[in-house]
Amino acid sequence: MCKSTCADQKGTEELESKIGKIPLIFRELAERDPQMYDFSLKMDNFIWDDGAITRKTKKLIAIAIATSLRDQHAIRAQMAGASNLGVTSEEIDEALRVTYLLAGMPAYVAGKVAQNEIMGE
Amino acid sequence: MCKSTCADQKGTEELESKIGKIPLIFRELAERDPQMYDFSLKMDNFIWDDGAITRKTKKLIAIAIATSLRDQHAIRAQMAGASNLGVTSEEIDEALRVTYLLAGMPAYVAGKVAQNEIMGE
Amino acid sequence: MCKSTCADQKGTEELESKIGKIPLIFRELAERDPQMYDFSLKMDNFIWDDGAITRKTKKLIAIAIATSLRDQHAIRAQMAGASNLGVTSEEIDEALRVTYLLAGMPAYVAGKVAQNEIMGE
Amino acid sequence: MCKSTCADQKGTEELESKIGKIPLIFRELAERDPQMYDFSLKMDNFIWDDGAITRKTKKLIAIAIATSLRDQHAIRAQMAGASNLGVTSEEIDEALRVTYLLAGMPAYVAGKVAQNEIMGE
Amino acid sequence: MCKSTCADQKGTEELESKIGKIPLIFRELAERDPQMYDFSLKMDNFIWDDGAITRKTKKLIAIAIATSLRDQHAIRAQMAGASNLGVTSEEIDEALRVTYLLAGMPAYVAGKVAQNEIMGE
Amino acid sequence: MCKSTCADQKGTEELESKIGKIPLIFRELAERDPQMYDFSLKMDNFIWDDGAITRKTKKLIAIAIATSLRDQHAIRAQMAGASNLGVTSEEIDEALRVTYLLAGMPAYVAGKVAQNEIMGE
Repeated sequence: MCKSTCADQKGTEELESKIGKIPLIFRELAERDPQMYDFSLKMDNFIWDDGAITRKTKKLIAIAIATSLRDQHAIRAQMAGASNLGVTSEEIDEALRVTYLLAGMPAYVAGKVAQNEIMGE
Repeated sequence: MCKSTCADQKGTEELESKIGKIPLIFRELAERDPQMYDFSLKMDNFIWDDGAITRKTKKLIAIAIATSLRDQHAIRAQMAGASNLGVTSEEIDEALRVTYLLAGMPAYVAGKVAQNEIMGE
Repeated sequence: MCKSTCADQKGTEELESKIGKIPLIFRELAERDPQMYDFSLKMDNFIWDDGAITRKTKKLIAIAIATSLRDQHAIRAQMAGASNLGVTSEEIDEALRVTYLLAGMPAYVAGKVAQNEIMGE
Repeated sequence: MCKSTCADQKGTEELESKIGKIPLIFRELAERDPQMYDFSLKMDNFIWDDGAITRKTKKLIAIAIATSLRDQHAIRAQMAGASNLGVTSEEIDEALRVTYLLAGMPAYVAGKVAQNEIMGE
Repeated sequence: MCKSTCADQKGTEELESKIGKIPLIFRELAERDPQMYDFSLKMDNFIWDDGAITRKTKKLIAIAIATSLRDQHAIRAQMAGASNLGVTSEEIDEALRVTYLLAGMPAYVAGKVAQNEIMGE
Repeated sequence: MCKSTCADQKGTEELESKIGKIPLIFRELAERDPQMYDFSLKMDNFIWDDGAITRKTKKLIAIAIATSLRDQHAIRAQMAGASNLGVTSEEIDEALRVTYLLAGMPAYVAGKVAQNEIMGE
C-alpha cells in the first residue's frame, strides 16, 4: 500500500535515470513532506533533463558546486550517481581543479576525499 | 619596456585563449605581485587546458561555482569570457538551474542578472 | 498583449500578496525563462503560504537567512516586501540580532544598512 | 567548588530557559575561556530575550540560519532546544522550506536529517 | 547634546585606537540600536585588546577572514583602519595569499581590489 | 621505489617545515594527481615562506579562515601543524575571538572543539 507517493512513482524513476542515483533522504521526503517532495520532484526532473547541456555535464557542475560550498553531504549525494551517468574519475579530477581555483584548496580536497571513497580512486 | 611580466607574455596570451578573457585585475597582478602572478598563471594554464573535459565545459562549471558562492565579481569575470569560448546563453541558463537547485533562488538570480548585463539576454 | 506569462497572472498576483513585493528580476524571468518561472512560481506560492507559521514570520526568516549569507541582493529583495506584510522595524532589529549571533557582526551590519535604506530607519 | 562561573550561574540558567538547551560546548567555555563566556552569556541573554518577536520565533530563525549556512553542529545545537520552547515539527518543516528557497536543496536536506534525528520525525 | 552614547564615549575612543578606524555604520548603531551597540562595544573592546597576539596581527586576521567570506563591506571596513595600526601593504599581500590558498582566487582578488582602493597600492 | 613524487621529495620536506604538518590527503595527491600536486607544492612553498609576516602568523590566519568558513577538515588540517610552528593555545584563543566577531558564534565554537581535540586544551 502506498500513500502520497504512488502517483510519483514514474517521476521518481525518471529522476533516478537522470541523476544516476536518488539519495535516500530525498526518497524519505516522499513520506515526510509529500507536497514538498512533489514540487521538488517536478523541479528536479525539469532541471536535470538533457537540453542545451547534457545531464552528464550537469552532474559535473553539481559536483563542482557542492564541493565549492564544502557541503559534505551534497558532495557525496552528487558523486554517488556520477558513474551511472558515465562520468569518469578523470572528468571529476578536472572539475575539481576548477573548484580549487574558485573556492580554494580545502574545497578541492573535500572533493578528492569523497571521490576516493565513492569512485574507488 | 616591460618589467616582470615580459617572460609571461606567452603564458598570458595562452591563458586568454583558454578562458576567453582575462579580467583586468588579474592583468594588474603582474605588476603588483609578480611572483603571485607567475604562480597563478602557470596554475591557471594547467587547470584551464582542454583535457578530459573541454575548456567550454570548464567555463560553465566556473560560472556555476561563482554563482553558487554569490560572488558578483567572480560571476562577471567568468561570464565575460564565455561567449569567446562558444558558450551560449541557453547553456548558461541550464547551468544556472543547477545552481538554483544546489544553492537557492538568490544565487540563480545573481547569475541571471549578470548574464543579462554581459551576454545581452 | 502577453506571451508566456498570461496564464500565470493569477499565480503572480497571489505570490505578491504573500511576499509583499515581487522583485523585478523575478518578474522578468517570466519572459526570459518561462518554464523556470512557472516552476518557481508554483514552488514559491506553496512555500510562502500561511501554514504552521505565518507569512510574516516566514519573511523574518527569509530576511535573516539572506543577511546571514551576506547576499546584498537577496537582503534587499526580501526587505522590500516586509512592511507590506506588517513586519515592523523592531521585529527586523531582533531578527538581525540572531543573525549577529549565528553569522557575525558584518552580516548583522549588512542587514542594518539595507533596513535603513528600505524601511527608512 | 567553582571558579570563574559561579557568578554566572543565574545568567546560565536564564539563558537555558530562553534557548531551550545550552550546548555542552558552550558550557565548557565557562572553564576554558571565562571572559569570552561572560561576554557571550550577556550578549546571548540580551539577544534571546522575548521582545518584538518571541524566543520561539527566534529559535525558528536560528534553525533556518544554521541550516542555510550548512553548519551541521549549529543546526543540531539549535534544534536540540527547540521542543523545550514549544517549537513543533510542522513549524520547522515550513522554516526549512524557506531555507530551500534561499539556500538550496542540500541546505534543506541537512535540516531534515537533523530534524529526524533530534525531533524523532 | 547626546543621548544614549555619552556614557560610551570612552569605550568608543578606546575601540578606535584598537581597530584603527570605526566604520560609520557601527557609529550609527549607537543611535539606532543603543543596547546592541553597548554590548558590541564591550565585546569588541575585549576581542581587539592586545594579548597573546597584537591588535596588528588581529587586524591581518580580520582582513583575511573578511576576504575569505567575500564580504565587500567587511573587507573595506577592516582595511580602512589597517594603516593606522601600522599594517603594511606587504603584510596584507601575504595575508591575502593565505586567503588564496584556503578560499580561492576570487577571494584573493576581492582583497587586492580593496587594498588598491584603500591603501593606494 | 617511487613514481612521480621523487623529484618533489625536497619540496615536500620544505613544506612540512613551513606548515608544521602536511595533511595525509595532500600527501596522497602526489600519487593521485601528480601534476596538481606539483603545482600546489610550489604554490604552497611560495605562500607559506617567511616574509613580511612569519609562517606562525600565517598559520593563525589560516586557522581563522578555515574556522570562519566552518570547514571541519580544513580547521583540523591547519591546527594539526600549529604547535610544531610554536603557535600556542592562547594565540589560537584570540584568533578564534576575531572569528567570533566576523563569522559568528558557531564558527568560533567549531574552532574551540577542534582546538580541544588537537591541542589537548
